[in-house]
Amino acid sequence: MELTQEIAEALLERWPVARLATLAPDGRPHLVPVVFARHDGHLWSPVDAKPKGSRELARVRNVRARPQVCLLLDHYDAAWRHLWWLRVDGRAAVVEGLDPNADAELGPVAAALRAKYPQYAEVPLFRGTPLVMRVAVERVRSWCAGPAALEAASQSVACPTQ
Amino acid sequence: MELTQEIAEALLERWPVARLATLAPDGRPHLVPVVFARHDGHLWSPVDAKPKGSRELARVRNVRARPQVCLLLDHYDAAWRHLWWLRVDGRAAVVEGLDPNADAELGPVAAALRAKYPQYAEVPLFRGTPLVMRVAVERVRSWCAGPAALEAASQSVACPTQ
Repeated sequence: MELTQEIAEALLERWPVARLATLAPDGRPHLVPVVFARHDGHLWSPVDAKPKGSRELARVRNVRARPQVCLLLDHYDAAWRHLWWLRVDGRAAVVEGLDPNADAELGPVAAALRAKYPQYAEVPLFRGTPLVMRVAVERVRSWCAGPAALEAASQSVACPTQ
Repeated sequence: MELTQEIAEALLERWPVARLATLAPDGRPHLVPVVFARHDGHLWSPVDAKPKGSRELARVRNVRARPQVCLLLDHYDAAWRHLWWLRVDGRAAVVEGLDPNADAELGPVAAALRAKYPQYAEVPLFRGTPLVMRVAVERVRSWCAGPAALEAASQSVACPTQ
């Protein structure tokens, strides 16, 4: 069965991690885990200051050449009746080089990322030139193992008590 | 920094879940979480009896047409200094239609999957015709945030006490 629309929306808003598949220059799939925030109907994933190998990341090079991406939100659980996944097919663009404090597009994106991830109080949101991937959501598909999985997914993104 | 060879080997042996990227007929990347076991130097992922939407899964159709796959093993942690990932580029083949109790190739694979996942005491390992994806590992890359991540990855796949 599929996740409900309400749970899918909550996951896109609050689930902390996605696995991002891009297409390498030779057409092969390439995978990396990413953080992301939703803003303005798009998913935004920063190239932040977590330690990385090289300056221009493969995911960035890949998206510049081929915008087709797939994002997977899911949670593995040894209790298989709790399993669910949410898959997003989309088109990604690299947005860069702007001052997030002054820019009308990146400012709210930076704010959304900081609101979702308190870790950015310690880890710089950008390293050098601000660079974010913007994913336009083209299609969302989901699956869950059954009612217990629906409940597990729902609980995992329940709104914090006000 | 990268994971050590020892930790990478332990993760390939014992980490319970991977995200599998295949190539759809239109060349787009396609993602799904999978269970897998290592046997004979390959990674094997069954099409088991967890409830699914249709008989011939997209991942199976994709691999039949284009064998290039990417598998990601990783663990998200709110403590970002614990983050790590292990990426496998490989070529997948669909192995099917054999009696795993009699077949010399699938028998040990089924045994490895049952040994790794006690869940298969309840969930059937195959539904109808046995079908497994065999991934030949072509390249392994890894990353971790630092020494604390190395320790976290190592602990998570430490051998059970004998």
